[in-house]
Amino acid sequence: MARWEPNASQRLADAALELFAERGYENTTVLDIAKRAGLTKSTFFRHFQDKRGVLFGEDALIEPLAAAIAATPAGATPLEAMAHGFDALGRHVFTPDRRAFTVRRREVIDAHPDLREREALKSMSLTAALTAAMERRGAPALLAAVSAQLGALTLKTAYERWSDPGNTDEFSDIARQTLSEVQAAVSAVHRGTRGPR
Amino acid sequence: MARWEPNASQRLADAALELFAERGYENTTVLDIAKRAGLTKSTFFRHFQDKRGVLFGEDALIEPLAAAIAATPAGATPLEAMAHGFDALGRHVFTPDRRAFTVRRREVIDAHPDLREREALKSMSLTAALTAAMERRGAPALLAAVSAQLGALTLKTAYERWSDPGNTDEFSDIARQTLSEVQAAVSAVHRGTRGPR
Repeated sequence: MARWEPNASQRLADAALELFAERGYENTTVLDIAKRAGLTKSTFFRHFQDKRGVLFGEDALIEPLAAAIAATPAGATPLEAMAHGFDALGRHVFTPDRRAFTVRRREVIDAHPDLREREALKSMSLTAALTAAMERRGAPALLAAVSAQLGALTLKTAYERWSDPGNTDEFSDIARQTLSEVQAAVSAVHRGTRGPR
Repeated sequence: MARWEPNASQRLADAALELFAERGYENTTVLDIAKRAGLTKSTFFRHFQDKRGVLFGEDALIEPLAAAIAATPAGATPLEAMAHGFDALGRHVFTPDRRAFTVRRREVIDAHPDLREREALKSMSLTAALTAAMERRGAPALLAAVSAQLGALTLKTAYERWSDPGNTDEFSDIARQTLSEVQAAVSAVHRGTRGPR
């Protein structure tokens, strides 16, 4: 029976990130990653489907986001519910000690088309999960979809700002600030701001 | 020197769609596709990078969309510019004679994770192109991004409605109707509609 390996998924992701940076994504094998992490190839495949998956393991975002949205009081607006979700990410996922990993992960993904493609799919799943979370709060389909698109845009923008090495603010502060900017933009679209300004 | 093959890209896409439906995506090779289209393998690779790309050849959407957005009078609102883009798609891309191809293409993509992944990437490129088109009209970054997200959501929803075999309306009518529904949803998010209704 397989031995339980503490924190195997994160160890594999850390090892992969090191190797991708050292010798390139193409020149790194699953066996290389497992060895560097002090684990076996079969442990790798218990956690990830393929090499491409190793930086996208956990769907770590969807669960805390969806849980926080579900726990937001019924009277809240769609974007208030999103804000609660982002606070939860700041507490549980985008914590200050994860920033260095995130910055390096961002660089590796940006450098490789295969990884950008996988990220696009993940981002689509995230938007779908946000839409479902809003529908469970009773939002009609298109209101749920619009809220989810705005939430996903806020999250992407806040994540980029947070994983900028020059930024030292906490994720939840950045996310709240970004959300208020997105709200201002929505308000401009709603008013029908015309042309260049 | 290579002979010019009229309409090779569309012939290859049609052949691929037939073969994927007949024997499955996994069991179809690039050579099979080229043969069915009456073309050579090297012609295939002049048009597409790999098998996965054959249903995503042309970026046929981005060019007419961006051109129509650029041609919209300067006084138009962001969503009016999007509406002009969708009209152009109805005239040049999602024409009634393309509907049957589109319906089958949709079914094949939905059935295969590899193809859904490629589609996710294409959809991300489309959103990026819409954002760039809005920025060229002078919209500030986040207003451009919000307009692009709403435009992409409208386009995706309208495309799904149009490629529903039970729907016989023209694409541009469906897109205008969808856009007005998205605008109503934006207005609800802007007002901060609370909780279930």
